Amino acid sequence: MHNKIIFVVFDGLGDRPIAKFDGLTPLEAAKTPNLDFLAKIGINGLSHTIKRGIRPGSDVAHLSLFGYDPKKYYTGRGIFEAAGIGMDLKKGDIAFRANAGTIDENGIITDRRAGRIESTEEFTKLIDGLKIEDVEIRVKAGTGHRMAIVLRGPGLSYKITDPDPHKTEEKIRISTAKDSSKEAEKTARIINELVKKANQLFTDHPLNQKRKQNNLPLANAILLRGAGEVVDFPNFKDKYAMKACCIAGGGLYKGIAKMLGMDIIAVEGATGKPDTNINAKIQVVQSQLEHYDFLFLHLKGTDACAEDGDFTAKKEYLERADREFEPIVRIAKENKATLVVTGDHTTACELKAHSAEPVPILITGKGVRIDKVEKFGERAAVCGGLGQITGLDIMPYLVNLSGNQPLYGN
Amino acid sequence: MHNKIIFVVFDGLGDRPIAKFDGLTPLEAAKTPNLDFLAKIGINGLSHTIKRGIRPGSDVAHLSLFGYDPKKYYTGRGIFEAAGIGMDLKKGDIAFRANAGTIDENGIITDRRAGRIESTEEFTKLIDGLKIEDVEIRVKAGTGHRMAIVLRGPGLSYKITDPDPHKTEEKIRISTAKDSSKEAEKTARIINELVKKANQLFTDHPLNQKRKQNNLPLANAILLRGAGEVVDFPNFKDKYAMKACCIAGGGLYKGIAKMLGMDIIAVEGATGKPDTNINAKIQVVQSQLEHYDFLFLHLKGTDACAEDGDFTAKKEYLERADREFEPIVRIAKENKATLVVTGDHTTACELKAHSAEPVPILITGKGVRIDKVEKFGERAAVCGGLGQITGLDIMPYLVNLSGNQPLYGN
Repeated sequence: MHNKIIFVVFDGLGDRPIAKFDGLTPLEAAKTPNLDFLAKIGINGLSHTIKRGIRPGSDVAHLSLFGYDPKKYYTGRGIFEAAGIGMDLKKGDIAFRANAGTIDENGIITDRRAGRIESTEEFTKLIDGLKIEDVEIRVKAGTGHRMAIVLRGPGLSYKITDPDPHKTEEKIRISTAKDSSKEAEKTARIINELVKKANQLFTDHPLNQKRKQNNLPLANAILLRGAGEVVDFPNFKDKYAMKACCIAGGGLYKGIAKMLGMDIIAVEGATGKPDTNINAKIQVVQSQLEHYDFLFLHLKGTDACAEDGDFTAKKEYLERADREFEPIVRIAKENKATLVVTGDHTTACELKAHSAEPVPILITGKGVRIDKVEKFGERAAVCGGLGQITGLDIMPYLVNLSGNQPLYGN
Repeated sequence: MHNKIIFVVFDGLGDRPIAKFDGLTPLEAAKTPNLDFLAKIGINGLSHTIKRGIRPGSDVAHLSLFGYDPKKYYTGRGIFEAAGIGMDLKKGDIAFRANAGTIDENGIITDRRAGRIESTEEFTKLIDGLKIEDVEIRVKAGTGHRMAIVLRGPGLSYKITDPDPHKTEEKIRISTAKDSSKEAEKTARIINELVKKANQLFTDHPLNQKRKQNNLPLANAILLRGAGEVVDFPNFKDKYAMKACCIAGGGLYKGIAKMLGMDIIAVEGATGKPDTNINAKIQVVQSQLEHYDFLFLHLKGTDACAEDGDFTAKKEYLERADREFEPIVRIAKENKATLVVTGDHTTACELKAHSAEPVPILITGKGVRIDKVEKFGERAAVCGGLGQITGLDIMPYLVNLSGNQPLYGN
């Protein structure tokens, strides 16, 4: 039996009814003949990625979709961001996301993104390789104002509070231990020291003199958040006996995939934004199908549009994706792979935020009990054969489909 | 309120779509007017016997159906097999299933069933009653090449590996402790000793001299597997205040029923195979209805056909069972009992093996919220009033139907 699986995640796919769409969601309002056809030849349902009522972040949602219980494996987003921009991580490392930000002479944050500075590369060099106490600090620039910071050394903990207050008009906070362990106290102490040093070193950099002359917000502070600890993620290949790859633009998704041991396939024009080159990504799915058993395709546009509250853009992104789906439909029709299309969570345009409603899921392929659902959508999926499932239910179903599920009992 | 319950389990009832049946499953393709009528006057759903994605053996599946959580009560199949052939078991006993098998002069297994020998009775006598260290060994012949072996004594454990390699062209394995407990080490030591003694004693038996002359594979080895420990199963009658009986052909099902304290009703012609006398079994249901509150009727044919990959035989078995169901339909119609018809797991003809897809369940009787399902089948059940449930959900629902469910809270 084949066990190729194409696993498509539209980020923030689900939504709430939109009055301007006569009470339909963007997905329901969109013309999506290809996705509807796939729903028709598949089994459908609704997925509560974590569980009912939980409003998930994309990080925990994806861990669940891949069958890794976030309760066991999730500590913080930092490690995925660091992995996503190519940093090497070892068990026990503590990683953070960080922004270059702007503080005024009183230490008050005036801009959390330093005027959306194009690159932090010159600044990260100043602190990359620092040693504080017995801990090595590694820093790498991400896109724009973003960077990731990794602490490596003995006796560290992710259980510390964020220095980043997540808003302006406040000072950078003093990080403190969330528990009373000496590991957390040490980590907080090091982070507070790093923040102080970075602020000094950044301020003096010639690039900031230039920004001052040009009346641009200085990149004179680092705002750290999302401390996470690298734990032992069972390798996807060991867990499922499937060689997996990731086709994504967004750093977080590549980071998660990398931490699970998937290969990351670079795609020209994959931006992790609504303007991404969907066609290029789908071509990669086609070309890599013979090389991989599990192909994770991530499409971020749905979430990005909904975070802006732009339901029309979300609908149009889905329509554009649907048109690009022809090759996927062909693969499904010819039964060359089991195909999953779903989302990682609902992003409600009316909230401009993630919400807890389930997302539709469709699965086509050999062995599925095709149900009567004829459209891909939040409400069409209600009477699907999968019923209402959780994210952690998905991989066992797929493994079972392939006939590789171990027997419980006798 | 009556609390008579007839609980019918078609083993391996569920299936996957069969191309030759235009994508229907054997149950969907079968003409089953009686089962369809029952679905119509009942409430329907899909049962994941253990939980979603778990591929269950029949033993753990039946424990779940009867409301005994296998996580708590299941250690291994051996105890049910021993109980099923009428061996007496006490708490702490360790029981095994075993075959009489054939090994060559180098100890390599050449036949795991000793040429499907008709009876092992002469051989079991040789080792029944042995004492190794302070442990008493009891052995009883089952049907054909099968036997069961019980160890009784202090300080034993079921956590040992199978001597039976489950395949030919290998030696019998040395059993070892799965944990580092001295109980497991002791049990493994005794089992290894027993295997050695049995091989010696069997080889010398006159019946084997005769088999040699007739060119039949010798029954000169025992192959043990499925170690289980007898735990305190709460008696079904104490748990549910229902006097229960079991109407089954297969030893495993009788064994489970016996361990739970059900009466086992002998049925002429109940073979545990597709050729079983379904009519005789159903007559027993009728005649015992006045004597019991809970009647468990087990039908094995569906599973046996599917394990052979014979979807046509599975369909025909279901059609034959459906015709024999007239008296059951009458009982349901006249509301003389609550009736449950379900399966213990899916056995997919395409895999010739159990798989994790849910099985349909229908329940008729006083108080049920009759839904709109009009057919008994995997997909017809999707929109049933029970939704998607687990095996452990069923008994509480039945107890509640009868009005005997204790109140939680106030």
